Amino acid sequence: MKIAIDAMGGDNAPEAVVDGTLLAQSHCSADLVLIGNEPVISGLIARGGAGPPPEVVHAAQAIEMEESGPVAIRKKRDASINIAMRMLAEGEVDAVVSAGNTSAIVASAKHHVELLPGLRRPALVVPLPTGGTPPVLLDAGAHAQAETVHLAQSAALAHIYLRVTRGTARPRIGLLNIGSEPGKGTKAVQRAFVLIKRSGLNFVGNIEPNEIFQDVIDGVVCEGFVGNIILKMSEGLAAAFVRAIGEEVGRNKTGCAGELDRVYDNFKKAFHYKHVGGAPLVGVKKTVIVAHGRSGATAISNAILLAERTVSDEVFRKMGEELEHDSSLADFRYFYASHILENLRKKWGFAPK
Amino acid sequence: MKIAIDAMGGDNAPEAVVDGTLLAQSHCSADLVLIGNEPVISGLIARGGAGPPPEVVHAAQAIEMEESGPVAIRKKRDASINIAMRMLAEGEVDAVVSAGNTSAIVASAKHHVELLPGLRRPALVVPLPTGGTPPVLLDAGAHAQAETVHLAQSAALAHIYLRVTRGTARPRIGLLNIGSEPGKGTKAVQRAFVLIKRSGLNFVGNIEPNEIFQDVIDGVVCEGFVGNIILKMSEGLAAAFVRAIGEEVGRNKTGCAGELDRVYDNFKKAFHYKHVGGAPLVGVKKTVIVAHGRSGATAISNAILLAERTVSDEVFRKMGEELEHDSSLADFRYFYASHILENLRKKWGFAPK
Repeated sequence: MKIAIDAMGGDNAPEAVVDGTLLAQSHCSADLVLIGNEPVISGLIARGGAGPPPEVVHAAQAIEMEESGPVAIRKKRDASINIAMRMLAEGEVDAVVSAGNTSAIVASAKHHVELLPGLRRPALVVPLPTGGTPPVLLDAGAHAQAETVHLAQSAALAHIYLRVTRGTARPRIGLLNIGSEPGKGTKAVQRAFVLIKRSGLNFVGNIEPNEIFQDVIDGVVCEGFVGNIILKMSEGLAAAFVRAIGEEVGRNKTGCAGELDRVYDNFKKAFHYKHVGGAPLVGVKKTVIVAHGRSGATAISNAILLAERTVSDEVFRKMGEELEHDSSLADFRYFYASHILENLRKKWGFAPK
Repeated sequence: MKIAIDAMGGDNAPEAVVDGTLLAQSHCSADLVLIGNEPVISGLIARGGAGPPPEVVHAAQAIEMEESGPVAIRKKRDASINIAMRMLAEGEVDAVVSAGNTSAIVASAKHHVELLPGLRRPALVVPLPTGGTPPVLLDAGAHAQAETVHLAQSAALAHIYLRVTRGTARPRIGLLNIGSEPGKGTKAVQRAFVLIKRSGLNFVGNIEPNEIFQDVIDGVVCEGFVGNIILKMSEGLAAAFVRAIGEEVGRNKTGCAGELDRVYDNFKKAFHYKHVGGAPLVGVKKTVIVAHGRSGATAISNAILLAERTVSDEVFRKMGEELEHDSSLADFRYFYASHILENLRKKWGFAPK
């Protein structure tokens, strides 16, 4: 197995990416390839010291965090992320890991690697820590905005992803909304409700965010803007809680210091977000892992280990297989078309009785 | 001072609303008027017992939670919320409190009470509990979807609201987004960034949700769908945290029970959401307080007390005054028009050099 790592992607690139790759090397059996500015990367590797140095593939260009992804991948054909995706498409590597500009990773993956048949766009999938078995959320930010059909297809992706990774036959899928009634939310969400309801998925309907913690769903669907906001809000709140309880424990230390510390440590373990390191970009044909832009060396290493597990579990290949036996994606296109047709008929006054 | 309470609004109406009103009566000096089905309300009041009974104004109709607000307030002219808003408009009462269908409350307020001059729509404002001085968020759900100009006007509303309620001369206003760079987010958010940037507001730029906890802003702006999701997510997470630390403390009880309980109690106090009861609907000319649809008697009582404070502090009147001295709303209309014009010029090829 071979994993390509975009050495130029991320706020702390290339230093943190090289360090993370060297760190991952001692924990995984896959061959790692760093894609980026060769002299710079080799210099950083040499500084790193022990162990056989990972392979380096030169990339003459790099995409910055503030660039528009779809534009940048066309203007900078030799950007590290493009080279990595081409290697993935041609089978030279089995997975790509990047902490770079998300919109560029997504655009490059769509352009070079192809989507599963019938799909309009991929989505980022992340587990939501709730105390119990974490439900997955998608889209966590592959695309900021989502139309009706994108939300409906995300529901199908959630279904397939949960079947493959958890073995649940009919995972419970919810649509994130601000109320339980079908007419709630933005227009895209209202229409997606109708579409998903008609499908064969195990759809539990609208889910309000507080219900995520009540074990009523296995997967929840929302647009990337909202999903990303939820993730970052949870991170912020979790950190504030851990800080507050830490101060509380510190303030109360008397004869019971050991006891209090144990409570604090257990709490921290349960609720400080596990650094999974990255999110799989589901819906493309081959394994792509998107790491947080702020990733340090440990997060990069974790993302590489996640890529290795995802490849060896054949998650992306099995999702493609599931899709062949599952007609929901095609159904959504049919439902969507008839939905639009119905509305047009109503509007122009020749609605069927 | 007189406050009208929509007795028919909310999941637990009219029972919880009547009980909440009776509860509030012993804590406030305002006269309270219940608007709803007279025989039913009077029966519930009689059951309540002690104290002088509040006034009841009959309403022949009520708007249900699943109805579309703008449609329902036109179809049901004698709905309790419409009667309450008409009394507010005519100066018979000083404030309206409702836990009913949010879209109906907002539509009825816009229709009967009028908006501040230059404003397109009102917004719900809520404090976000972060440990320190809570920044305010708007819109918390008055309208699910927001266009560019709505977001920009919400920034101006946040500015005015914070000046009036906190006395901050130039409150720091942020735009909620999934990244710090100007090009991030949905199209409406990207364009709102440009608009707010050009205004005279103390605009700190895009704010990621985790930054809300870092005391970098006094107010944060987002569309109602996102704001409402954030609120409900925070509620859910807070409850999960409090549950988890409670279990942790319970599990560890040995010789230090008293000490552990003290830590737990303090933590709960600091992080269990204070039930403020309701959110002011800012941007209308007179005081409207929207309570949570799930409100019980205590939450209703708190919402009534909030209405009383808001009226006696003259928040809504002062906001109108501030706006007269503040040209940012008018500016946003001008900026928006020139922004559209610029884009058209670019599109049709006669952009100025």
